[in-house]
Amino acid sequence: MAIATSTIDQFADDLAAALAPERVSRAEAVRAQHGGGETLLNAVPPDLVATPHTTDEVVALVNLAREYHVPVIPHGAGSSLEGHLAAVHGGVSVDMREMSRILRLELEDLDVTVEAGVSRLQLDEHIRPHGVFFPVDPGADATLGGMAGTSATGTTTVRYGAMRENVRSLTVVTAQGKVIRTASRAAKTSAGYDLTRLFVGSEGTLGVITELTLRVYGIPEAIAAAVCVFPSVDAAVQTAIATVQMGIPIARVEMLDAEQMRGMSLVSDLDYEAAPTLFLEFHGSEAAVTEQAKEVGEIATEFGGNDFVWSLEQEERTRLWSARHLAWEAAKALRPGCEGLSTDICVPISRLAECIQAAREDIDASGLQAAIVGHVGDGHYHVVFVLDPNDPDEMRRALDVHERMVHKSISVEGTCSGEHGVGQGKAKFLELEHGVEGVEVMRAVKHSLDPDGIMNPGKIIDAPAPTYGHSV
Amino acid sequence: MAIATSTIDQFADDLAAALAPERVSRAEAVRAQHGGGETLLNAVPPDLVATPHTTDEVVALVNLAREYHVPVIPHGAGSSLEGHLAAVHGGVSVDMREMSRILRLELEDLDVTVEAGVSRLQLDEHIRPHGVFFPVDPGADATLGGMAGTSATGTTTVRYGAMRENVRSLTVVTAQGKVIRTASRAAKTSAGYDLTRLFVGSEGTLGVITELTLRVYGIPEAIAAAVCVFPSVDAAVQTAIATVQMGIPIARVEMLDAEQMRGMSLVSDLDYEAAPTLFLEFHGSEAAVTEQAKEVGEIATEFGGNDFVWSLEQEERTRLWSARHLAWEAAKALRPGCEGLSTDICVPISRLAECIQAAREDIDASGLQAAIVGHVGDGHYHVVFVLDPNDPDEMRRALDVHERMVHKSISVEGTCSGEHGVGQGKAKFLELEHGVEGVEVMRAVKHSLDPDGIMNPGKIIDAPAPTYGHSV
Repeated sequence: MAIATSTIDQFADDLAAALAPERVSRAEAVRAQHGGGETLLNAVPPDLVATPHTTDEVVALVNLAREYHVPVIPHGAGSSLEGHLAAVHGGVSVDMREMSRILRLELEDLDVTVEAGVSRLQLDEHIRPHGVFFPVDPGADATLGGMAGTSATGTTTVRYGAMRENVRSLTVVTAQGKVIRTASRAAKTSAGYDLTRLFVGSEGTLGVITELTLRVYGIPEAIAAAVCVFPSVDAAVQTAIATVQMGIPIARVEMLDAEQMRGMSLVSDLDYEAAPTLFLEFHGSEAAVTEQAKEVGEIATEFGGNDFVWSLEQEERTRLWSARHLAWEAAKALRPGCEGLSTDICVPISRLAECIQAAREDIDASGLQAAIVGHVGDGHYHVVFVLDPNDPDEMRRALDVHERMVHKSISVEGTCSGEHGVGQGKAKFLELEHGVEGVEVMRAVKHSLDPDGIMNPGKIIDAPAPTYGHSV
Repeated sequence: MAIATSTIDQFADDLAAALAPERVSRAEAVRAQHGGGETLLNAVPPDLVATPHTTDEVVALVNLAREYHVPVIPHGAGSSLEGHLAAVHGGVSVDMREMSRILRLELEDLDVTVEAGVSRLQLDEHIRPHGVFFPVDPGADATLGGMAGTSATGTTTVRYGAMRENVRSLTVVTAQGKVIRTASRAAKTSAGYDLTRLFVGSEGTLGVITELTLRVYGIPEAIAAAVCVFPSVDAAVQTAIATVQMGIPIARVEMLDAEQMRGMSLVSDLDYEAAPTLFLEFHGSEAAVTEQAKEVGEIATEFGGNDFVWSLEQEERTRLWSARHLAWEAAKALRPGCEGLSTDICVPISRLAECIQAAREDIDASGLQAAIVGHVGDGHYHVVFVLDPNDPDEMRRALDVHERMVHKSISVEGTCSGEHGVGQGKAKFLELEHGVEGVEVMRAVKHSLDPDGIMNPGKIIDAPAPTYGHSV
């Protein structure tokens, strides 16, 4: 149900007065860039795009949106993968990227306070010279606000935790236009309901995150990287399980399957065979990482790993991990001219190998091409389908495989989303995962905090079914 | 406003039919044991006490409670310190201690599923022979359900996190009598609102936790303990700050002040001078803990620490940490015949020394006796007042000092409760910490999930002021 043009006209005028005319746009080109993300879900452009500079401007925006009943859709870097940005009920996209100040770095407290539009690489560049880093590293150069909104994780989550564990506090503009600080800067608290974790992962459906206080960590004295090729996915996963079980504080353990490694050889100078491979990283003192690397090398060898190579050299590490960050391009290189569709499953690690195996068999049986890569230390994997954008049947088959992957995940006590969030794309699986009653609790929370239904409506809960890749 | 006796009569009859007559008690002695906790807040006994054996029985209980509008107060080990158990609006105490089965240990997934009445020492005894442990260790032998309810932490939180980080999923009976599972067993998820963290720390005000799936960790190959005496609280805290900043993965770092150490010498065979002291623990391989202990020893020496002693020997560790666990008794030994009143403050660690210093000066100026002990790696400390139970004026002065401690904490961006929860005792500080708007968000959540107001009403939000120690 579109919003009346006259309403949008008035809303836009009032908003332009509250912010600045040049920071409220109804240009089609601008709108077209704000309704999608890096996904094959079809974009739904918003009615307008606003670019606030302060929390107070966000308050003004939300108050106007409530008055005119116009949906508010927070927008970070636009790297969403599940349709979080689609204006399914129309509305205003709130582009946070000009709220990009790093406000305060407290080295003794190991925390940093930033505006929501700061990107993770921007943050990294700013704080590294001070000897600290922020660990959560999704593939894209996402904004910290977006990462909190989707409850993002990354390659180092196995050691340092996800956004959930690394957000100390948030400044949020509620649907009522009130500004709350979800927690103090204390490292721990039990002072009332955990509002921080309520908003982390809420995808803009409960309020707009405008500032974040994040944990940071001292840069380790030494870092070692390692790589090892395995005879099977199972052998690689068993190595990860044994490593975590032994309490070895591994910083990263990524698995790339044979197809993913084949793609990697096409886009990087890595010269490994096309077989399941683990990329690993160890953080600590030089003695500690040396010991850890040797121990994991022994475990890998036990499980049939081949040529476990490790290095303390920065150059070698950079070569390895730069390649890992090319996973998306590598998958697409398997089939030039095609587009990628990423999935995102997380299961108890004891069931990971069987889930990956089942996915691979289903992919092959469906005549599809896909690479598999995962943060296996957390029991997590992505299937990246490489699809012909002009073949709707291929897309349909990929979505069917994906649906079976989700059902399999939930049947082994896993989740339909490890880190990409729900948005529009995963909404239909929520009842399967949480039960009708669990979703009912979410709905009650949503309605209590957003009684007017203006905060990113049609996401997570009561989402209209998305369409994919040109109307599949 | 007491509940009509006839209502309680009928409710008790129906409840006895649903559970078993011998598991529903209205005996005064039983009720008297269920309205308090280990605290000087005055107890308020419930109207009756029920002891369910299954989640289904809890459902039956909640449904009856809703029908008769009788408050439901979950009860674990009864080690509450902030009046969580007081039946301020009457009602039924739900004693969970007979739901004490350890249901499932999954070693590959490093998780364990337990009923809510399992105690932490019971769990430890069960899982240690399998080579794993659960890290969260509050002072009391609390139940895991109670620990999740109050968002408990412990001495190892600096390394392994608090309940918030270590609960993977909960089974909860909602106020509507529905059973939800808050999350899958996956290590991470972004599938909708974080219901797990919503119920962790909700103190029974949103539902009754009946089962928990918890993370466990491989027992480290080696553990070293260390102790070091410092010239000042500041020097001890600076040592903790530098240790964490350098990324040394310290497992425990506890500070005991001069008074606390004086008490310790009265109840243990520890023979240290009465001066600020750090107890530390390191987990890892033998080589790693040796290196860590040496590094921290160097840091301590830089800050004037004296005789940094460390050991890999089990016996020495047990001696040290058994003493640490006597902190409560040690404080009380400072003044025989008196009672302890524990406080619970957590601030950004950069402000910790000044807060402890201010508290100490205030204690002394108020003519009170108190020991100070804290999980300083998290910026946390307890003042344990030792009070004459027959001197209401002393109690009043202690509560005044406490109030100033809380105000100071919040003024430096800390919290009024690091780990004990809010209950009745801290409720009056919530607006100061979260603002009116923050508390309003909590109230909206509370009302949405418990519209009838039957789940532990008068706690966290809209709590009547408590009385302390015989009507102060």
